Formats: sequence, C-alpha cells, structure tokens
Amino acid sequence: MIYYAYNPNNYNNATVNNNRVKGKGLPTSKEQQDGQYKRENAAFVVLARNSDLNGLRSSMQMVEDRFNRKYNYPWVFLNDVPFDEKFKEWTTGLASGKTYYGELTHDMWGYPDWIDQDKAKQAREKMAADKVIYGGSESYRHMCRFQSGWFFRHPLMDQFDYYWRVEPDIKFTCDVDYDPFRLMRERDLKYGFTISLHEYETTIPTLWQTTKNFMKEYPQHIIPANSSDSLMKWISDDGGETYNLCHFWSNFEIASLAFLRSQAYLDYFNYLDKAGGFFYERWGDAPVHSIAAALMLKKSEVHYFYDMGYFHNPFFNCPSEPSWLPAEKCSCDPTESMEKHWWSCTQKFLDIAGKKTSDFVITTRN
Amino acid sequence: MIYYAYNPNNYNNATVNNNRVKGKGLPTSKEQQDGQYKRENAAFVVLARNSDLNGLRSSMQMVEDRFNRKYNYPWVFLNDVPFDEKFKEWTTGLASGKTYYGELTHDMWGYPDWIDQDKAKQAREKMAADKVIYGGSESYRHMCRFQSGWFFRHPLMDQFDYYWRVEPDIKFTCDVDYDPFRLMRERDLKYGFTISLHEYETTIPTLWQTTKNFMKEYPQHIIPANSSDSLMKWISDDGGETYNLCHFWSNFEIASLAFLRSQAYLDYFNYLDKAGGFFYERWGDAPVHSIAAALMLKKSEVHYFYDMGYFHNPFFNCPSEPSWLPAEKCSCDPTESMEKHWWSCTQKFLDIAGKKTSDFVITTRN
Repeated sequence: MIYYAYNPNNYNNATVNNNRVKGKGLPTSKEQQDGQYKRENAAFVVLARNSDLNGLRSSMQMVEDRFNRKYNYPWVFLNDVPFDEKFKEWTTGLASGKTYYGELTHDMWGYPDWIDQDKAKQAREKMAADKVIYGGSESYRHMCRFQSGWFFRHPLMDQFDYYWRVEPDIKFTCDVDYDPFRLMRERDLKYGFTISLHEYETTIPTLWQTTKNFMKEYPQHIIPANSSDSLMKWISDDGGETYNLCHFWSNFEIASLAFLRSQAYLDYFNYLDKAGGFFYERWGDAPVHSIAAALMLKKSEVHYFYDMGYFHNPFFNCPSEPSWLPAEKCSCDPTESMEKHWWSCTQKFLDIAGKKTSDFVITTRN
Repeated sequence: MIYYAYNPNNYNNATVNNNRVKGKGLPTSKEQQDGQYKRENAAFVVLARNSDLNGLRSSMQMVEDRFNRKYNYPWVFLNDVPFDEKFKEWTTGLASGKTYYGELTHDMWGYPDWIDQDKAKQAREKMAADKVIYGGSESYRHMCRFQSGWFFRHPLMDQFDYYWRVEPDIKFTCDVDYDPFRLMRERDLKYGFTISLHEYETTIPTLWQTTKNFMKEYPQHIIPANSSDSLMKWISDDGGETYNLCHFWSNFEIASLAFLRSQAYLDYFNYLDKAGGFFYERWGDAPVHSIAAALMLKKSEVHYFYDMGYFHNPFFNCPSEPSWLPAEKCSCDPTESMEKHWWSCTQKFLDIAGKKTSDFVITTRN
C-alpha cells in the first residue's frame, strides 16, 4: 500500500484555546479567524478517480468557500489506483488544510475469496438487463463495499476521530459558520446527514433478511426496538418485519469513525460481506450505514444537518426556517428542498426523533 | 423613477491608506484584510428580473467568494419593474458591500418615438420565423438597447467610475487576489473582457454600414485605422470595409463609465439608436460596446482579464499558464478554455495587441 502526505508545509498547526465558546457552545468564525482555534481530529474524506478531478475541484472550492477556509481541516483522498501528479497538485492547490493521498489494498477493493465471481458476473448481467441503476457496474459494487466497510480502516484515517465525506460535483450553498466536527464531539453525535430518501428495492432484495439474521445472532449490538432510544421505527413500519427502504444519502456524511470502527459495526459489515450481497445483489453503502445507525445508535446520536445547504444531483437540502437564507448567505432555493419531497424520509426522522427543523439550527450568528 | 439604497448599514467605510503596494502595483489580499484599503469608485451592476433571483444568487455567491468578500464593493441592481422584497432581502444577504435597487425609466426601457412599432413587430416575426437567436423577443431588444446606451446613465451609477457587469448563472472559478478596479485606474484601462467571439451575422445586417456612416460623420471620435494604437484590425480584416463579427462577450465587462459617458460613445449610441437597428434588427450590446471600444480606445486601454476563471453558458475562460491553476485556486479546466476555440477572437486580439497571455497575468501572489 502506498500512501503519504503531500506538501505538508501548507498545514497550519493551530494552538490550543480552552475558552468556552459563546452562542450555542460553538466558536464564532471571528474567534477562529483571530487564531487560537483547536481543530478536532477530523478530515474530509474523498474516494475519487483521477478522472474525477474537475468535478472534485468544484466540490472542494465550495467546501472551502462555505466552511473550510476558516478552519483548514485536512483532506484525505483515496483511490484504487495511484493518483497522478496533476490530481495531487490541483487538489492541494484548492485545499486550505493538509492533503493526503492514499491507495487501496486488495482487501479494500477486490473480491473476498468466498465470493463466486461467475455468480457475481451473472448477477451484474441480469441486473443490467433489468435496468437496475448501476446494476451492471463492477466498480460501483467495489465502491459500495469499500464505503461500507473499509474507508475508515485505511491507515491514513487512523489519526482521525471524525470524517466528512465529499464527492465530485456536489455543492454547499450556505455558509457554515460553526465547526460541525466540534458539534459532533460536544453533543456526542455519531452520525450526521443532510438528505434521506427511499432505496431502490431491486438493489437490495435480501439485505433486510440478512440484517434480521444478524440481529438474531448479535442481539448485544442492537438497541431494543421497544426502547425510546431506538430508531427502528425510522427503517421499519412494522416493528422490524420489513425494511421500509429509508436511508441517509451517504454521499454526504459527517460521522464518528469510532462508530464505524466499533465491534458492533464491524460485525455487521463482516456479516453482510460474508453473505455476498455487495456482489450478488448491489447493496449500497447508504442503506448499510443507515441501517447500522438505526439499529446501533440512539436517536440523540443522529443529527440532521438541516443548516447545510447541500446539493448532489438530483436532490438538495436547503433550509427554509424564516430569515435563514439571507442571514446565512445561502444561494439555494428552499422551495424544492428535498425534505418536503414524498421520496424523502426526513420528516419521518423528525417525527420519530420528536424534533422540529428549528431544533437543528446550529448557527452562531447573532 | 424609484431607486434607493437598501440596508446601508452593511456598508463598511474603508479608510485611506496611500502606501504604495507591492507586487505589480496592487495590494495583496492580506494587506486588505488588515484594513486600510481604499476602494475605487466602482460597483457591480446587474440587470435582472425578480425571476432571476436564484441564478443571480449563485452568481453573487461566487463573485463574493472569489473576490468581493475581501473588498466589499457595492452592488447595483436594475430592473424594468420594481424589485420585490424577497429579491432585495435575498441578494442583500449575500452581498458584502452596500446594495442599491433601481428601476428603469421609459427612456431606458421603451420605444423611442421615432421607432415604427409595427415595423419592429414585423421584424421580430420574420426573425423568429428565420430562427434567429432571440429574434422574436421584444424584451431582449429592450435589454440590448439598455445595455448599449443606458445603464451607465442610471442615476444610481452616477457615483461610480467603473463597473463590473454580473449576470445570473455565471461562475467565477479562480481567486481574484487583486482589485481589478484599481488595475483599471492605475493602468488607465477603459475596457476589460474575458471572452471574445464572433457574432451571429443575422442579428446585425446593417450595423456595420451604419457604423461606417457614423465614422464618416464623426471622424473626430475615431482613432485612425492606420495608427499603431488602433484596434480596427481586430474588427475588420479589410481595413474597415466589412465587419469580421469579432466582439467581446459583454455578459462580463469591467470597464470605465467615463468611456461610455463620453461624447464619442454617446454620439455613437445615439446614431445607432436613430437608425433603429435595436428594434428593426436585433443589435446586441456586445458588438455595440466592442465596435465602439475598437474604434475609440487605444489598444493599450483594452485589457484581457486572462486570469479570471469565468463561465457563462456555454463558454468559459480558464487560464492555462504553467502552475496557474493550483496557485490561484482555480476550479476550472483549462483544456477547453474559449480562447483556444475557433469561434473566439481572443488570439486575434493578442496578435494585434502584440501581447501574450502571460502579459495579462496580474497576480499579486508570490
């Protein structure tokens, strides 16, 4: 495995300031611009091909503009083949924090030895013929499996406690004037999302049955469905009998690496991986992360980043609380924000969590 | 006419500092962030409808991100009908400088009394039938006439010496780490562009003949074509006999208001306006501004803003000087930059001006 830090000189080592912050427990950007801000152990993480360079630079520029130019968090780029020099130079140029470039191992991007590759190929061909989205793609399956079970175990991620996943061609449209990583730590949050929706059932025919088998074998990892902390009702409308296809859209995630590295999560991933559905079906990392979060995390540990103006084709999240858009310098249009869409599961999440969107307003502006 | 300043409290009156600047005669952004920067008398100017709000906010956010958040230049918004409160609130929210909202008078957006409106209508119908781009649109013609002859005479513009035209749904993709308005003043520049191209001839059948008539009647306004200062060769390949259709794409302009307010320019606009081609044909403000610049300005007064990463559907300008993109935090792809396109006139401009793209690099980064 090859991985290394690129151009470490552009890293600004911040000094420590233990002053408590005003507002809602978070520092203002002004306080950060004055220096003395201690970053969390956190990074942006990007799985990308060399050919994703231009779409990724567009994403990076918006992430830096809206948030990171004031915080200088590092970026970790991962690829199944080596990044070329142009990719490294042109992404490091846009980053305000340190940049790291890593390659994946065969464990992370390849077939486990128990997978029948002929059977996998036939499954791809059948799904392609059935017009299942990405159903015919082999690399998409490796990607989903990597994002489900491996990115958080890449050695470049070892130093970090939290990650913010970024993809090419996404947009951030509102200023983020607080540190979401600090929010995660101070509020003991484990998983944060902006958009939720329903999965295509044809990509996961046996995922829920496999999950039910896992729950029977590993009951110690599951928050009981009858507990007031449980999010089971968010993913099942019949007490766990069937999956209602709700999931967090994982192209955006701000989450705890400790959660993904936990024995509970690893047992779940390994169980799914053994079952083979990443290759024999087309299980996505979004339902895998989401089901794990709903089974293993308390309601209070899952955060709706309502205040993130976020776009990933074809959906966006745009806050519509009164007076929000001008004050937070948003460029998005809230009238079509995804949480109001019938295909979204966010209102269900709010109902089950017993919260309103205004409960997720974190701004430190006054 | 209704026009007024909206929320003047967000205007940061900068103080004067007469220190000479380092680099190429321009202040670095750090010096500006430290305060003590005296802005030029300059503003962004936007002609927009209320329905342009979302596309315009996207443009504003990029202009602010790439340049104006460090400089806080004001924004002037003009409309043929009153802006609604939502438009004013949502644009002021994104502006780092003062915002002004103005309405147009009938002089600025209407038919002069010498125009035969039936003839104009027939012309529109014929051009629509002939599939001329925007050929059937009445409002597009008012817009072209307004941008050709009126925006710089709106009372809200009186206080300014330079303008930067911004349209909805444009992108700026490279950090602008110097003040283009100051560049204009210090180098005695009158007109700046990023993209040039060839006009659709069907929109301007008699524009050049009308221009030739003007040149005969007002020779005092024209730089002689045989002068080494003349840009005539940029717009005519046969010494002024015919127009080669080259023009600066006026959706981006950074230019001198004194140039447009000059007797020479006003005589030219009035001459064209009397001829009626804004309505009987579909003369665009781009060829009108460009021909005027080529006839009335010295080569040395026209600037190629090579270092502006700029996109207006479907073309973009993206600097490709070595090491430029990472250093200037560009997110654009230089391989398809418009100046290399056969439809561009920028290489011809460089040839006639006797310059290379590197001569237009203004960066103050070191």
